[in-house]
Amino acid sequence: MNNIDWLNALETPFLLIDEFRFQRNIDRLYQRTEKLGSQIRPHLKTLRSIEAGRYLLKDAASPATVSTLAEAEAFAAAGYTNLLYAVGIAPHKLPRIASLIRKGVNIHILLDSPEQARAVTDYARANGVTFSVFIEIDCDGHRGGIPPESDALLELAQQIDGNGATLTGLLAHAGESYACRTDEAIRAAARTECKAINIAGQRVRALGIACPVLSVGATPTAHFAEDLTGITEVRAGVFTTFDLVMKNVGVCSLDDIALSVVSTVIGHNREKGWVFIDAGWMALSRDRGTASQAKDYGYGLVCDLYGSPYHDLCVTITNQEHGIIALPADSGLSVDNFPVGTRLRILPNHACATAAMHQHYQVLKSHRNEQETWQRITGW
Amino acid sequence: MNNIDWLNALETPFLLIDEFRFQRNIDRLYQRTEKLGSQIRPHLKTLRSIEAGRYLLKDAASPATVSTLAEAEAFAAAGYTNLLYAVGIAPHKLPRIASLIRKGVNIHILLDSPEQARAVTDYARANGVTFSVFIEIDCDGHRGGIPPESDALLELAQQIDGNGATLTGLLAHAGESYACRTDEAIRAAARTECKAINIAGQRVRALGIACPVLSVGATPTAHFAEDLTGITEVRAGVFTTFDLVMKNVGVCSLDDIALSVVSTVIGHNREKGWVFIDAGWMALSRDRGTASQAKDYGYGLVCDLYGSPYHDLCVTITNQEHGIIALPADSGLSVDNFPVGTRLRILPNHACATAAMHQHYQVLKSHRNEQETWQRITGW
Repeated sequence: MNNIDWLNALETPFLLIDEFRFQRNIDRLYQRTEKLGSQIRPHLKTLRSIEAGRYLLKDAASPATVSTLAEAEAFAAAGYTNLLYAVGIAPHKLPRIASLIRKGVNIHILLDSPEQARAVTDYARANGVTFSVFIEIDCDGHRGGIPPESDALLELAQQIDGNGATLTGLLAHAGESYACRTDEAIRAAARTECKAINIAGQRVRALGIACPVLSVGATPTAHFAEDLTGITEVRAGVFTTFDLVMKNVGVCSLDDIALSVVSTVIGHNREKGWVFIDAGWMALSRDRGTASQAKDYGYGLVCDLYGSPYHDLCVTITNQEHGIIALPADSGLSVDNFPVGTRLRILPNHACATAAMHQHYQVLKSHRNEQETWQRITGW
Repeated sequence: MNNIDWLNALETPFLLIDEFRFQRNIDRLYQRTEKLGSQIRPHLKTLRSIEAGRYLLKDAASPATVSTLAEAEAFAAAGYTNLLYAVGIAPHKLPRIASLIRKGVNIHILLDSPEQARAVTDYARANGVTFSVFIEIDCDGHRGGIPPESDALLELAQQIDGNGATLTGLLAHAGESYACRTDEAIRAAARTECKAINIAGQRVRALGIACPVLSVGATPTAHFAEDLTGITEVRAGVFTTFDLVMKNVGVCSLDDIALSVVSTVIGHNREKGWVFIDAGWMALSRDRGTASQAKDYGYGLVCDLYGSPYHDLCVTITNQEHGIIALPADSGLSVDNFPVGTRLRILPNHACATAAMHQHYQVLKSHRNEQETWQRITGW
């Protein structure tokens, strides 16, 4: 493992994906979910990459989730046809949705209000197109959605279905599970998420609306759910690479983290015990997701170039293109352990935010440590 | 001003530059600095855009500062020839520097250690190239650099100059000035910065080394310095657009902020008084720079589409593609004031971080509110 010349040759900073860990993370969740009788609709927002998506989507009709129309259009152009755009639909975005539908893409939109539904049915009628709609269900007060027991849900379902739109599914997202501190808390969040969507599903179906898809998911609940009865699909995104936030939540170990930023030592402040690297927040992101968790990793955990973490060594401060690693007094390390030119890997707080700072990713392939480059889909 | 159709027609979210404010900010600092007998070497890292750079660089040889070699190469390709790469040089980056020198670009590199100097002089000798070097001077313990009174400075200057390199200048950066709370504190930081570089300059020149450039700067000190005697150039970056952090430091007013993100309302949580917009941290960045300041603006200050701020209305929470505006109970506003489809402008905490989330910028031109698009230089 110690002779990967290209890791030393590429310009730094760069984002590195470890294919072995990436594949292992995917296998773990897919096998777990299939055993529970459901399937994964992966959220592609973390890496936004066709090349990465191929590991997740077995065939053209495999279900997928996207966070932007830019992703939807790129995955559609790559041949994928079952795409859920899981951000509440804004009316001005309907022409782009309609254009995908006319190309034969089974794209689903999300909404939770009568005014959105009206915009959708009006547009459908005026333009001779039929939309596939998901209604967002609120399971934990985290963001948007309608309570599963509400009259508003039934009214919205009837407003949509058959009026230029098909009510394809209901969606819940246990956003609060990211704040869980124990496995049992995550299991409870998963039960709440499934219960909410099952209640909502029964009530909508009692109206005579088929509503075939019941969709739940967040990376923590996807890994801890014990009973997926009635759940037709589970969404998860960051699980392919994981990160320090997920490690703190208890969903993965440090050794599962498949994404890092490779950086070079560019200087020292000997008096302060500071090591400067060429990865600032432009390469690592401004995400400080571990700041509110039990273990704060600063702007990321420092590893050697081959991925072995230095115990408790973090990027302490970032400027735009500088990172500062403040060596703890009790670490036994001095700046001389990190000569100028030394390369280090930094594990990220939040993989989605770190990946967003890069236009492409370097991939360390399982096969003979070969190199591959994946492109990120940018923009909206 | 209220009939700018294109602001309503473009896909959201998008980054908007107000050219009138942008030009006014530039004029203010350039005129101020020229009156004090110095000149601006603008730091191009905020927007990283050739189109934006044209407002700052009068001719091909105008001095400029960049934070990455990607910017240096792009500005060189656009014809600019006087570029300071103001991040400590890593030895493996020297071939790209040498390549620019061979193309006739006057590119300057920065260092502060004997090991970096050795790498530079060794490479120069082996490859028949002469580097132009700046030494970083530490004026406030903020990051890197050498104390101006140190023996190390003189040793380093002698190690460099004439050994495959020319010592072109000394550079100080009053990074601590971003934490100032009063105008007088910024003025004091500016005095400290200038004093450090003048002392360093006198000591180096006493060795018989010409070292023609004495460079200081940070946006706060650039706007408050009262005496630039001996200072040949002043660096500043974020001053072209400003942001909420700079407003809190006291360098600009809200009305000076020339950069915002245009976003669309996509939903509500009526019970909580939440308005959802389609600008999450992907569009706004994760930067929470105002969190540690007197006035915390969350993830940004909310304005109407034409730029008038709502008093104390901020983006409170962000997910990747969702922003949540929590309406304060005493604001007199309800979610009905923000119907789905409403467009809003969000002023950023930190313009550099927000701009970094976008691949291009939409520009509202002073002339008849016309539209223009500027491209961002990406990568390293």
